[in-house]
Amino acid sequence: MTITITAFERSPDGGKGLARDTRVRWALEEVGQPYDVRLVSFAAMKAPDHLRLHPFGQIPTYEEGGLALFETGAIVLHIAQHYPGLLPQEDDARARAIMWMFAALNTVEPPILELMTVRIIEHDKPWSAERLPLVMDRIRTRLDQLSARLGEADWLDGAFSAGDLMMVSVLLRLRMSGLLDEYPRLAAYVARGEVRPAYQRAFAAQLAINAPPG
Amino acid sequence: MTITITAFERSPDGGKGLARDTRVRWALEEVGQPYDVRLVSFAAMKAPDHLRLHPFGQIPTYEEGGLALFETGAIVLHIAQHYPGLLPQEDDARARAIMWMFAALNTVEPPILELMTVRIIEHDKPWSAERLPLVMDRIRTRLDQLSARLGEADWLDGAFSAGDLMMVSVLLRLRMSGLLDEYPRLAAYVARGEVRPAYQRAFAAQLAINAPPG
Repeated sequence: MTITITAFERSPDGGKGLARDTRVRWALEEVGQPYDVRLVSFAAMKAPDHLRLHPFGQIPTYEEGGLALFETGAIVLHIAQHYPGLLPQEDDARARAIMWMFAALNTVEPPILELMTVRIIEHDKPWSAERLPLVMDRIRTRLDQLSARLGEADWLDGAFSAGDLMMVSVLLRLRMSGLLDEYPRLAAYVARGEVRPAYQRAFAAQLAINAPPG
Repeated sequence: MTITITAFERSPDGGKGLARDTRVRWALEEVGQPYDVRLVSFAAMKAPDHLRLHPFGQIPTYEEGGLALFETGAIVLHIAQHYPGLLPQEDDARARAIMWMFAALNTVEPPILELMTVRIIEHDKPWSAERLPLVMDRIRTRLDQLSARLGEADWLDGAFSAGDLMMVSVLLRLRMSGLLDEYPRLAAYVARGEVRPAYQRAFAAQLAINAPPG
């Protein structure tokens, strides 16, 4: 069955790979599944056709036969549960890999998204400059804890898993802020993710759309 | 095997059921699994023993035999995947129920947590009053979309599932704000969750700890 995902017709990040379709592309590349991409404009994302597929009017979505999913976490988990390569076989190790997916999305990413709120959505507000260091410190709390847990290991729990895929993707959002450079272990962890051939292919695929060669 | 979860020795909400252990208790009640509770003080949550179990120093955690998990979403999903009662049998319907868990935690809850930031963490900041309506409007955007998708249905996708358990739990955080009252369909949806006997037992169990009868 053909897998079709949606992505921005034009990503707001101009091809840095931070749009969430990159996470799904990466997962599909890790498990070696081909996929089609349907590009969606900002206007089309809020139109009834797309809202039937994604009630919150976002990308990515995932269609495969009669199944239609939204939410990047759910899509990556579905891929990981149906194709080998992203989750350990053993039951407890599998539960822990899924745990790290939730930790990436629910504990580490929320303060990072607040950084986007300060820098973009509330950029022109009078409190923006004064709020920034507060938000940065909330991110540092999470990075301190994550770095302590990772220690000298290559990945969060044994071999590379969907949990690492999600955590690396979330941490990549911090590159521009300079925060990642304060945590050499985490910077090296992200770099290990980025050099994976599957990540490289996913990144190149989104770049081809967002920054087509002149 | 005995299941042991952790909860606040004294919840900051004084027993309103908003601490995340209530979500895990509810899931365990829905599937009819007994569990033990270990109470943790704020100081103990940041101590090495607890950090080994939960690297981000929070509650709840879940221990069962050799398995130790943190992250409420991962714990509820683990329970739902191992005991019948919270996920449909059919593959695609199961993926969609899990999708709603992620939607609750990653799309609906983040703006609601920003409300806690405004009201509690940044309560004494000069921008707090001016930021509040911006954050409220971001929540309304999600509630508009969620209410449109729910329509006249009782639950988000067929029978009650772990997706509804998580969405109702997230929406319950809004009760005090008055925002839920602007959405009669969502208020009725939350009420349907609250009257479930399993929720009632979970709520009573956390209340017994947090507001013991004088």
